[in-house]
Amino acid sequence: MQRDLSELNPPARLLLGPGPSNVHPRVYRAMMAPVIGYLDPDFIRLLEDTQRPLRAVFRTENDLTFPVSGTGSAGMEAALYNVLEEGDTVIICINGFFGERMVDMAGRCGARVVRVEAEWGRIIEPEQVAAALRANPGAKAVCIVHAETSTGVLQPLADIARLAHEHGALVIVDTVTSLGGCEVPVDDLGLDVVYSATQKCLSAPPGMAPITFGPRAMDVIAQRRSPCRSWYVDVTMLRNYYGEARRYHHTPPMSMLYALREALRLVLEEGLEARIARHRRNAQALWAGLEALGLQLHVEEPYRAPPLTTVRVPEGVNEEQVRKALLFEHNIEIGAGLGPLQGQVWRIGLMGYSSQPGNVFALLQALAVELSRQGYRASPSAGVEAAARLLGPP
Amino acid sequence: MQRDLSELNPPARLLLGPGPSNVHPRVYRAMMAPVIGYLDPDFIRLLEDTQRPLRAVFRTENDLTFPVSGTGSAGMEAALYNVLEEGDTVIICINGFFGERMVDMAGRCGARVVRVEAEWGRIIEPEQVAAALRANPGAKAVCIVHAETSTGVLQPLADIARLAHEHGALVIVDTVTSLGGCEVPVDDLGLDVVYSATQKCLSAPPGMAPITFGPRAMDVIAQRRSPCRSWYVDVTMLRNYYGEARRYHHTPPMSMLYALREALRLVLEEGLEARIARHRRNAQALWAGLEALGLQLHVEEPYRAPPLTTVRVPEGVNEEQVRKALLFEHNIEIGAGLGPLQGQVWRIGLMGYSSQPGNVFALLQALAVELSRQGYRASPSAGVEAAARLLGPP
Repeated sequence: MQRDLSELNPPARLLLGPGPSNVHPRVYRAMMAPVIGYLDPDFIRLLEDTQRPLRAVFRTENDLTFPVSGTGSAGMEAALYNVLEEGDTVIICINGFFGERMVDMAGRCGARVVRVEAEWGRIIEPEQVAAALRANPGAKAVCIVHAETSTGVLQPLADIARLAHEHGALVIVDTVTSLGGCEVPVDDLGLDVVYSATQKCLSAPPGMAPITFGPRAMDVIAQRRSPCRSWYVDVTMLRNYYGEARRYHHTPPMSMLYALREALRLVLEEGLEARIARHRRNAQALWAGLEALGLQLHVEEPYRAPPLTTVRVPEGVNEEQVRKALLFEHNIEIGAGLGPLQGQVWRIGLMGYSSQPGNVFALLQALAVELSRQGYRASPSAGVEAAARLLGPP
Repeated sequence: MQRDLSELNPPARLLLGPGPSNVHPRVYRAMMAPVIGYLDPDFIRLLEDTQRPLRAVFRTENDLTFPVSGTGSAGMEAALYNVLEEGDTVIICINGFFGERMVDMAGRCGARVVRVEAEWGRIIEPEQVAAALRANPGAKAVCIVHAETSTGVLQPLADIARLAHEHGALVIVDTVTSLGGCEVPVDDLGLDVVYSATQKCLSAPPGMAPITFGPRAMDVIAQRRSPCRSWYVDVTMLRNYYGEARRYHHTPPMSMLYALREALRLVLEEGLEARIARHRRNAQALWAGLEALGLQLHVEEPYRAPPLTTVRVPEGVNEEQVRKALLFEHNIEIGAGLGPLQGQVWRIGLMGYSSQPGNVFALLQALAVELSRQGYRASPSAGVEAAARLLGPP
């Protein structure tokens, strides 16, 4: 057996990609707390301590609000698999990568999928959903992504939620990239199942998927004809652990819970409104800076998601070279385009702890340097100056 | 919104229950390493660094050896769901809690389950499996638990694996409580799918499930008629990330991977053989000590799993009072009995970093004190003395 594994030594990057975002030092420190047993009274208290602020960021009173013991995709699986079963019809809105993932999962549940599509970078129009609901009476749910990490679109939800409920359909919403950085008004809009992830605007490490189930969803789940196709995320069992009974289901990832609890504590200290405003302010400065460099933003202003900006790669510029130079020479991670946007856009995240004025300036400066190396003509300082005008003196 | 979440402050317990075990300080420290992106070249190297020693502890050359991004039950789901599909027949050996869990999962895959049962605390006899294989030609797999956390039985695997293969069935093995503390000879026995967890004998925090798929299993998976019912653990996609392509599937829990990598590094430093011998030596001392206190071990000596000991609660003793006193007064966690063993046994774990002579002494001493408080008559020092005779001077 080899014995030569070297000391762990990952680089300390500035994470301005599609996630994970940079983790706050206090969150790292929280993971040093001792692991204890899953039935220890102290651990049960800690679960409650994590569930209460989760309800606050989801703006919900839903009892069944907890972190799934997996990453954001496990949250998506928990949302879809618990609601959908064989023979169901489900309307899925697709205007990016994660809508397609929902289609894949719904198919594995045996559901018939009705696709409602928009171009990558545009929103889904309520009228499209209304038409799908009219054409498919009895559709069990409408699934939609709030902030599409692949496109940077922030989808308005109010009209679509209202339409779905008028037709007796549940609303399932992916808030992986919005929770903690955008308003996610679960109870106000009556969103029925909403899931997220820890490594975006909450700035904990990846590994858990906060989720909340509303009363309508729980009613639908209670009337299933067949068990949930996944054992791991079956809420009819999970609620016995995350509810009052606290009966053993699986061993939750304690250290991740410690991290999430501390990340939520940071949200409470900052205040959710202030945090959302910070995300918007820094994103607007980024947008102004990118435009001042002559770059074109991929999404129209009213529909831009502050946590994730897509900016078009200018003609004649090698997008991969710029991205790699940012990573290896400036130590800044940004993301490449996915699917039809591959090679077309860069994806710049300003999420959670990464959403800071200094990071906006650092990125704009580094990007200007790398663009000019590629022969792109723009005043290198124009980006930082435009951002600074919006962010004001520190 | 409330703002009153207190500082995280879990107690530092001595974890001698069914898991999690105590985490080595170096593993905690590893989680302080900065989170980076899932496509960062440094992260890809770290994945490789984790996959190589995982192959070593599984004693396999299987290329597809990686940690599932969930806890041990997600590993079980990954093993069963990838192999089983509607219409399959599967033979499941049940002599404890986790065999029953496999039955539940196999049913959700649409498989027909053939139950092979033994009393909780006894092994499954090869002849039982042979009879089931003869009665069910074409059975796709035999599923069995190596170390049953609910009973403390260590199941011999060689004959059962040979029989399964003679009948063209795969062998799926749960090594959640054995990997890193017992010999798990995947390639020697040709075990086809083997999964585990991080929080037992590897002594990392819970949150990942190491798994390995052999060539026969991959052939069977390639011939599936329908997609895996779980998207999250579908290896036909996961192998594109954990194999050479490194194509995005989901964002893995970096900090958990850092922890697992460091835990595996500790295994390499100690040496797997030495580590297995340590688990056996400390368990034997525990067994001698418990018997010297006049207690009866639930499992016959040849089939005891060193990482997890079940000891019978003596008549007239309130098992819950003893367990709670151990937790609250001695700061030691042990486990209660499950299922038919509820109230009948205590479960004492000596796993990974928790498997230390000092912990054996501490537990025996505390248990003797609490038993005598309940009027149980035994020489309080007899346990420690018997254990000390086996463990010798430090």
